[in-house]
Amino acid sequence: MDVDRVLVVGGGPAGLEAAHGVASLGRRVLLVEGRDELGGTPYASYATLTPDLSDATEAMRGMIDRITDNPLVDVRLGTRVVASSGEAGGFRVALEGKDGEKREEAAAAVIVATGFQHFDPGRETQMYGYYEYDDVITLVDAEKMFREGRIVRPSNGEAPATVCFIQCVGSRDRQIGNKYCSKVCCGIASKQAIEIRRMVPGAKVFIFYIDMRMYGFWEDQIYWKAQEEYKVNYVRGIVTEVIRKGDKLLVKGEDTTMGRPMEVLMDLVILSVGMEPSRGTVEMSRIFGIPREEHGFLATVGGPLDTVSTPVPGIFVAGAAAGPKDLEDSISMGGAAAMKAAALLARMGEGALR
Amino acid sequence: MDVDRVLVVGGGPAGLEAAHGVASLGRRVLLVEGRDELGGTPYASYATLTPDLSDATEAMRGMIDRITDNPLVDVRLGTRVVASSGEAGGFRVALEGKDGEKREEAAAAVIVATGFQHFDPGRETQMYGYYEYDDVITLVDAEKMFREGRIVRPSNGEAPATVCFIQCVGSRDRQIGNKYCSKVCCGIASKQAIEIRRMVPGAKVFIFYIDMRMYGFWEDQIYWKAQEEYKVNYVRGIVTEVIRKGDKLLVKGEDTTMGRPMEVLMDLVILSVGMEPSRGTVEMSRIFGIPREEHGFLATVGGPLDTVSTPVPGIFVAGAAAGPKDLEDSISMGGAAAMKAAALLARMGEGALR
Repeated sequence: MDVDRVLVVGGGPAGLEAAHGVASLGRRVLLVEGRDELGGTPYASYATLTPDLSDATEAMRGMIDRITDNPLVDVRLGTRVVASSGEAGGFRVALEGKDGEKREEAAAAVIVATGFQHFDPGRETQMYGYYEYDDVITLVDAEKMFREGRIVRPSNGEAPATVCFIQCVGSRDRQIGNKYCSKVCCGIASKQAIEIRRMVPGAKVFIFYIDMRMYGFWEDQIYWKAQEEYKVNYVRGIVTEVIRKGDKLLVKGEDTTMGRPMEVLMDLVILSVGMEPSRGTVEMSRIFGIPREEHGFLATVGGPLDTVSTPVPGIFVAGAAAGPKDLEDSISMGGAAAMKAAALLARMGEGALR
Repeated sequence: MDVDRVLVVGGGPAGLEAAHGVASLGRRVLLVEGRDELGGTPYASYATLTPDLSDATEAMRGMIDRITDNPLVDVRLGTRVVASSGEAGGFRVALEGKDGEKREEAAAAVIVATGFQHFDPGRETQMYGYYEYDDVITLVDAEKMFREGRIVRPSNGEAPATVCFIQCVGSRDRQIGNKYCSKVCCGIASKQAIEIRRMVPGAKVFIFYIDMRMYGFWEDQIYWKAQEEYKVNYVRGIVTEVIRKGDKLLVKGEDTTMGRPMEVLMDLVILSVGMEPSRGTVEMSRIFGIPREEHGFLATVGGPLDTVSTPVPGIFVAGAAAGPKDLEDSISMGGAAAMKAAALLARMGEGALR
């Protein structure tokens, strides 16, 4: 069996960067992706990247091409890892294609990059009417429209005159069970607000938030820009309910800066849905025996001084499979995981393993 | 000359991780550090790490030991890079020791990990009286006391009954010239607030903030914990002035949630000072010809899809030399930069360079 290589599970930004990194160190990679294409969430669902508003398809295309053109990388699309045995230096995995055919493969190390899924805003206590009202959409639904160069009210196909974002949907919420902050939604909403103001210059755009988590350069490069150049209105407030009023949506809550109840009519409401562990992440936890940390993501060891090593020797994690991550995090982790997996192969070569 | 190796400049978390990463791939490293010891800011100035409150000295000691014990890593303390020539695959640098002696060295690739310096809160428009009042200190001054297991008012050596943190000192401030958010100060202040409540259980501790940027797991693991277990008081407000009143400090400003002016007496005021490019970072920009981005940190290329490549081929950056970074960022970037530098050496070995 072909053991002298690294298995990368997941072909989104973190997995693509990890696979490229391992190959650039002269090591072979087996890259397994459940979907029929590489590129992950940005390629499947996003029009532009945060923070630089670059074209997501084009940017991810570059990452995909350098993998598919690489003779050291064996890509398996539409394929899932369904079983695993062995240990660092000699993992054996069963892969299953969409046709149900199984195949056994081997690898010395594994990088899990199975990412996140968006919170389902129709779940449980969420009072935002996502499944009731056509004009209540999510960040992801908005991106899909942006890919067609437009933003409209799904109910009538017309450009919205008033739009609001509701932040922290499925995040920072003990009742829902997701106590963590999803890290990227403030940045993505602000980026989308800019895009809406570009597409519909007359639209009034509001963002209802608890804290704007525009860390680092996002502060001035997105947040200030949204306010100063694009006149996006940021309102610190809690939205408690969205109901229909005529052909509009009535957003009710409290403006916590003004200290008063708030009722505003909107044409379009965009829910800033957070991150949860993807189905693939949960499956890889089970199959490889990787413990999950208290929020359900894959556990790492070493606190802030090791971002990619899981408690299982020889298995590393990159990107949002380990918790809410922005693109930079995923890329840096992909590179770091590639380094650690290749280092394990180097130690094997010296006979230090097995 | 000894060209088949990687020069790492800076021995903080990012540089130590980068050096270890390169060595773990079987490549040699020349690690140059201006101070007389490795470990960077956490080792020199911090008692505990954010977010896990682990002992900073012990944690960094582990990173330092695996470098000093590594035969592939040549460490030069008290040494600065003072000149450079050549290009990717063949850089030549002049090093200068504290005795003024110069020495020429060679390396195929360079990783710059020269980090940040804390904002000087006595500068220009800052009205917080840092240089006037003994009991106005910074996050760093507080850590120094924590290392001795205590927190006291410098004016009289007594435990403070009332303490407040002022966030965003030198950050998010157009007037000062630092438009960016420094990313880590909300986390560090909250961590310190917990530590103060542990050391002085009777103390009332306040944090005056604009937005609490407790992204990801920091939300519940630090922010909720500080409020629920340690009764830290978070007040959304702007502090405009700190003046002496008797033997206490009068903190004046506006509580923006309550919408009213605020005047509170404090025993101890802690300024949450932000990050600026360190002197070493500015020097490396000049010596290696690495452009600085608009905020003064080292520029990278590739937007969010490449966090460590600078515009100069063969030169990579890791950690806060590239902007405000938390520990996880610095560690991930250190690993990613190690991978890319070692990949360059691998390409050289194949004759693709030079």
